[in-house]
Amino acid sequence: MPISNALTELSSLLGNRLSRSKSELEAHGTSETHFAPAPPDAVAFPETTREVAEIVKICAANACPVIPWGAGTSLEGHGLAIRGGVCVDFRNMNRVLHLSPEDMDVTVQPGITREALNTELRTTGLFFPVDPGANASIGGMAGTRASGTTAVRYGTMRDNVLATEVVLADGRIIRTGSRARKSSAGYDLTGLMVGSEGTLGLITELTLRLYGQPEAISAAVCAFPTIDAAVNAVIATIQIGVPMARIEFVDPATAAAFNRYASANMPEAPHLMIEFHGSPASVAEDAKRFGEIAADFGGTEFRWSDRPEDRNALWKMRHDAYYACLSLRPGARAVVTDICVPISALAEAVEQTRADIEASPLQGPILGHVGDGNFHAILLVDPADKADMAEAQRLAGRMSDRALALGGTISGEHGIGIGKLDYMEKEHGTAWSVMADLKRALDPHNILNPGKMVRLN
Amino acid sequence: MPISNALTELSSLLGNRLSRSKSELEAHGTSETHFAPAPPDAVAFPETTREVAEIVKICAANACPVIPWGAGTSLEGHGLAIRGGVCVDFRNMNRVLHLSPEDMDVTVQPGITREALNTELRTTGLFFPVDPGANASIGGMAGTRASGTTAVRYGTMRDNVLATEVVLADGRIIRTGSRARKSSAGYDLTGLMVGSEGTLGLITELTLRLYGQPEAISAAVCAFPTIDAAVNAVIATIQIGVPMARIEFVDPATAAAFNRYASANMPEAPHLMIEFHGSPASVAEDAKRFGEIAADFGGTEFRWSDRPEDRNALWKMRHDAYYACLSLRPGARAVVTDICVPISALAEAVEQTRADIEASPLQGPILGHVGDGNFHAILLVDPADKADMAEAQRLAGRMSDRALALGGTISGEHGIGIGKLDYMEKEHGTAWSVMADLKRALDPHNILNPGKMVRLN
Repeated sequence: MPISNALTELSSLLGNRLSRSKSELEAHGTSETHFAPAPPDAVAFPETTREVAEIVKICAANACPVIPWGAGTSLEGHGLAIRGGVCVDFRNMNRVLHLSPEDMDVTVQPGITREALNTELRTTGLFFPVDPGANASIGGMAGTRASGTTAVRYGTMRDNVLATEVVLADGRIIRTGSRARKSSAGYDLTGLMVGSEGTLGLITELTLRLYGQPEAISAAVCAFPTIDAAVNAVIATIQIGVPMARIEFVDPATAAAFNRYASANMPEAPHLMIEFHGSPASVAEDAKRFGEIAADFGGTEFRWSDRPEDRNALWKMRHDAYYACLSLRPGARAVVTDICVPISALAEAVEQTRADIEASPLQGPILGHVGDGNFHAILLVDPADKADMAEAQRLAGRMSDRALALGGTISGEHGIGIGKLDYMEKEHGTAWSVMADLKRALDPHNILNPGKMVRLN
Repeated sequence: MPISNALTELSSLLGNRLSRSKSELEAHGTSETHFAPAPPDAVAFPETTREVAEIVKICAANACPVIPWGAGTSLEGHGLAIRGGVCVDFRNMNRVLHLSPEDMDVTVQPGITREALNTELRTTGLFFPVDPGANASIGGMAGTRASGTTAVRYGTMRDNVLATEVVLADGRIIRTGSRARKSSAGYDLTGLMVGSEGTLGLITELTLRLYGQPEAISAAVCAFPTIDAAVNAVIATIQIGVPMARIEFVDPATAAAFNRYASANMPEAPHLMIEFHGSPASVAEDAKRFGEIAADFGGTEFRWSDRPEDRNALWKMRHDAYYACLSLRPGARAVVTDICVPISALAEAVEQTRADIEASPLQGPILGHVGDGNFHAILLVDPADKADMAEAQRLAGRMSDRALALGGTISGEHGIGIGKLDYMEKEHGTAWSVMADLKRALDPHNILNPGKMVRLN
């Protein structure tokens, strides 16, 4: 029993920081969305990189899968132990290791959450902008190449991780990147690790870009007569070069969910939620220019919020959208889709998706990061109902096919996990087998989060 | 003779588009800097991706090295055929394949130069901002992960290549990325190819981000009493969040070179050259704020240029800096260094480098992209003079060691080629052997630009 050998050795390494309690196994075997539970054989709580390396060495010697765990907020079942093994929970590795305000960077351990990091940064005048909504861990956000509402201005995790420390599949520890802002020295291993979902290595440190807290912020919500009008207002705003910090789309069904869950009192129409960051003068100018563009496209019910409490309420509502949508069908779980298309194809993609869902028995509010061409349908299902699940998978499959036909991608920000594996070959063709070649090169015995991202023969 | 077999087969594939003329071999065996010539056995001029794939298949079957070639402007000997083989010159693959103004992206063949691309874009209101100075090919710029004067605002090639088509070492053709602005679908193969210097595949198409031509541009040049004052003015400007489009540093020796080569009439002092892009109001505000900061740090001799002809003269002078510096020692070649450090360490790095060079018999003006922490010393040498070369290598080695000690990188933008191989292990440690693992996975017979980037046993 190789796994039980590993557990014995891990137990003597970690003592009571290796847990086999039913509650821990359950908590680390459950996904945020509709996937069936798949608990690990044990959960390890390392405190140092060296311990992570020892854990991986023990698991490698015993052919025991190793699955990294952050805050458990991923949406495609990334953390499920579908082949058993040891879940490595980074909750005890959650410190800020080095902050350089002059360089506007910070080095952290992977278990720190984005909210905890920003709380620590509050007095520095700096912040870390990537914001997927959930209070995810920074390590998990790197693993899934997360982005969210602010990517249109500040980029995704791909753009904001400068360097990592990684434990490889054989327990060796490497550093990728540096604190320099750019480099042409070798293959971009940082970029390779970000988005690799724990299948190429376990990230044990990350150096992140920080940004100055904006001097002034202005946010607004605005209704539009049609989806097309809302999307075209965004395209025009981007082309004119008005720098949006956030630009979110919600459809009429999402507005209805906000009304019900957050007492929002919004018309049941397509809406944009927008935010500008900058100096007081530039924010005022940006808001004025956006207002003119929105009016050209029939925008109404405009509400600006310069007061922090109004803005916080607006973005809290957006961040809670997942739960607001779930509330439309009490007891439901969700199949959450995540396509991203060139923005010129966005209105078409959203409208066809809306029509598909309207013709379906399922409810599925649509919302997304419209400045990037990325949107989600929250398909409400009873996971125990086979007809529900089949219909949700059919709708999700049509969305993925549509994304690819329009030159886009099957995942804008949630990643592959086990939920999107079946679409990888369609998106990447031969390049998917190149990904498998890379996996074999870095993890020849397939112990790191096996069964995710690639299929090996 | 495997290479001669390959040449026979390539000749029947390409006819007179396979050249073995002395002048072509010489032109494709010469570097822009100090490296000894290393001509290939033949130069191929493919016209399609399919032809590139056929070339690679023939070379793979005959163990014949394949070296990609763009405009020949790289600075670390990337294109030298140090093990013979076939140089693949992309000059005939230089077309714009698809332009989407709404999506602000363009798909091009690798042989198009950045100036030719921007000429084609001129009437669209869009431009491609990455600007390494030389009129490099877009494929070559991707290969070396080039950046240059505008990276502080628009990023490097890493940030601006959305997708590629690549011919692999066995002749298979893959596509990486898509026209979506972001994706979490799989390992970042685009990022892996960008900066891989032709060692993992030959890039045959690239999809690039474009940007709106700025409505207003304002540029200035300003002298400072010390290097430290100039660098600290930049740090303060970044921290306050004034968005600079370019921010260049030149030292007194470079100013002297400009005076001599371009009749610039600058005081022989440290200078910053700066540019702002935006709306007329934002540019005016940015310029005012920078002016105040520069004054705080003792900036003098301020000259603003709102007129395009003045700005063009300013940046032409900067772009010609390499030749201006060469003119300080008639007949000289250059060892061009390229370190990048966290900006808080930049003044220290520049001043120590300046002191090193002043204590040396060599001349070496210093200039760089100070907003990114990246700078170059142009060490003037007679490559035939062993003492010159040894001294230049000593100075360059001290710069690289200094960069690493300060948390930086041995190459900010020029790449590794053959010039920086000896520093790769120092920078990356075990991670360099991971790069070799990736090379073996994608090019097991080591035919793609062999001898560059990694060392294989």
